[in-house]
Amino acid sequence: MGEGVTEFKEGDHVLTLFIGECQRCRHCTSNKSNMCRALGLERSGVMHSDRKTRFSIKGNPVYHYCAVSSFSEYTVVHSGCAAKVSPKAPLEKICILSCGVATVFGLGTVGLSVVQGAKIRGASRVIGVDINPEKGEKAKDFGVDMYLNPKDYDEPIHEVIKRITDGGADYSFECAGDTRATTTALQSCCDGWGLTVTLGVPKAKPEITAHYGLLLTGRTLRGSLFGGWRPKSDIPSLVDKYLNKEIRVDEFVTHNLQLEDINKAFELMREGKCLRCVLHMPK
Amino acid sequence: MGEGVTEFKEGDHVLTLFIGECQRCRHCTSNKSNMCRALGLERSGVMHSDRKTRFSIKGNPVYHYCAVSSFSEYTVVHSGCAAKVSPKAPLEKICILSCGVATVFGLGTVGLSVVQGAKIRGASRVIGVDINPEKGEKAKDFGVDMYLNPKDYDEPIHEVIKRITDGGADYSFECAGDTRATTTALQSCCDGWGLTVTLGVPKAKPEITAHYGLLLTGRTLRGSLFGGWRPKSDIPSLVDKYLNKEIRVDEFVTHNLQLEDINKAFELMREGKCLRCVLHMPK
Repeated sequence: MGEGVTEFKEGDHVLTLFIGECQRCRHCTSNKSNMCRALGLERSGVMHSDRKTRFSIKGNPVYHYCAVSSFSEYTVVHSGCAAKVSPKAPLEKICILSCGVATVFGLGTVGLSVVQGAKIRGASRVIGVDINPEKGEKAKDFGVDMYLNPKDYDEPIHEVIKRITDGGADYSFECAGDTRATTTALQSCCDGWGLTVTLGVPKAKPEITAHYGLLLTGRTLRGSLFGGWRPKSDIPSLVDKYLNKEIRVDEFVTHNLQLEDINKAFELMREGKCLRCVLHMPK
Repeated sequence: MGEGVTEFKEGDHVLTLFIGECQRCRHCTSNKSNMCRALGLERSGVMHSDRKTRFSIKGNPVYHYCAVSSFSEYTVVHSGCAAKVSPKAPLEKICILSCGVATVFGLGTVGLSVVQGAKIRGASRVIGVDINPEKGEKAKDFGVDMYLNPKDYDEPIHEVIKRITDGGADYSFECAGDTRATTTALQSCCDGWGLTVTLGVPKAKPEITAHYGLLLTGRTLRGSLFGGWRPKSDIPSLVDKYLNKEIRVDEFVTHNLQLEDINKAFELMREGKCLRCVLHMPK
């Protein structure tokens, strides 16, 4: 345990957090944001505290990945980047909560998490859109009421959605990591009060474009990082919800591999064959 | 009075509305929208009811402008496009409320209305941005605490604003009718909870572009048409606020001209010399 760290003791179960929570800055105390100023996204591969690394190979620094460096048997993280959770929950399942369900791990997992959330919050009808029919089938298990494949239609998919929903959906979520899908999501929601949330991190074309008329007629475009969860404050209760079977997490894990097969895991993900792969440490 | 119209009687003072309010459709009954489905923006120069015009010259139809055809001594409007207001309020002043203050009439008037609204809602500090220093001076009368002219700075104005506000404004409003200004407004507000409202109708470049990262880190982009006012339900109370001196309207009128000088009025507006010009009918 590092000097000055009092909130943890050896053996505690923690989830590591790619954005931390100092619980003191303007953002942490705002009750409106999870964008911690002290332990946020600007970290450049070093510790937030002294801007140095904690790992080295033969005297050369090994940089930290996303503040957690989790592809490793042991790691060092800032205490503000760890959340203490119930020891009853199996770590290899709930580890997904500190990133996967609440933020981006490819279309499948993010989209299904949104479906699950929408159902919990009482959505009367959830329409799922994906060009991969296999993902469409899986989505029905998670509560999708209607699956649409854009490839099945000659007209743009937002026109189909507007027709089905009598003017557009109340809420739409972009979980594809594609800014063109964000535009389509905005076009698919209704004027007056339609809300589009963009969750994906695009591989290409970082600029979102939208005709001003979509906004002027009452639509709202918002983004969400890490599901808006305050990492230390909210994650433990998310684990409790899992333990109480209020949210499903196990079903996201489609593969289990050894850490040494990490590249195969990436391959499965790229090919769209895997929702979530848990990597196990050597015994 | 047209057949079936019961809510008005001869001599009533009304404001005519470029978007109406049927008070029955999904939007009018939603309490969330002013985008009336029956009397909204789709009208193509004819009456909503029978898709015909009410004016003609030598047998040829004269089409309706914006549902109100207000550049005229007499006009015919759908009863859903008129709001009855207090007869105590001078019509040549409050006419601005059914469009000007609540929506776009060029940078000056829209921007100053936003300033006024922000002050009424308790904004602790209002920063006004305009490349025209004369408009900056006028804005101080309306409550702008600090005026910035982008031409006075070498760095982008959103960087200046972020520095002044310790990370960005809580709210930013685009009132310039320029989609590039919308992007700047989004860059000028803070991550976590910053809200940007776009109010302008652009003359060119109808597509708004924004880096996805601005949204992902917690900013929201929203549009507002007609200030979000429900035209028939809200306008009369806006007139009452004017009569109670809760909002300023007179100060927007910088020019008074005769209707026959309408083209001069447009010229003044284009040149940025005029905030609001009232056109008077021939005596």
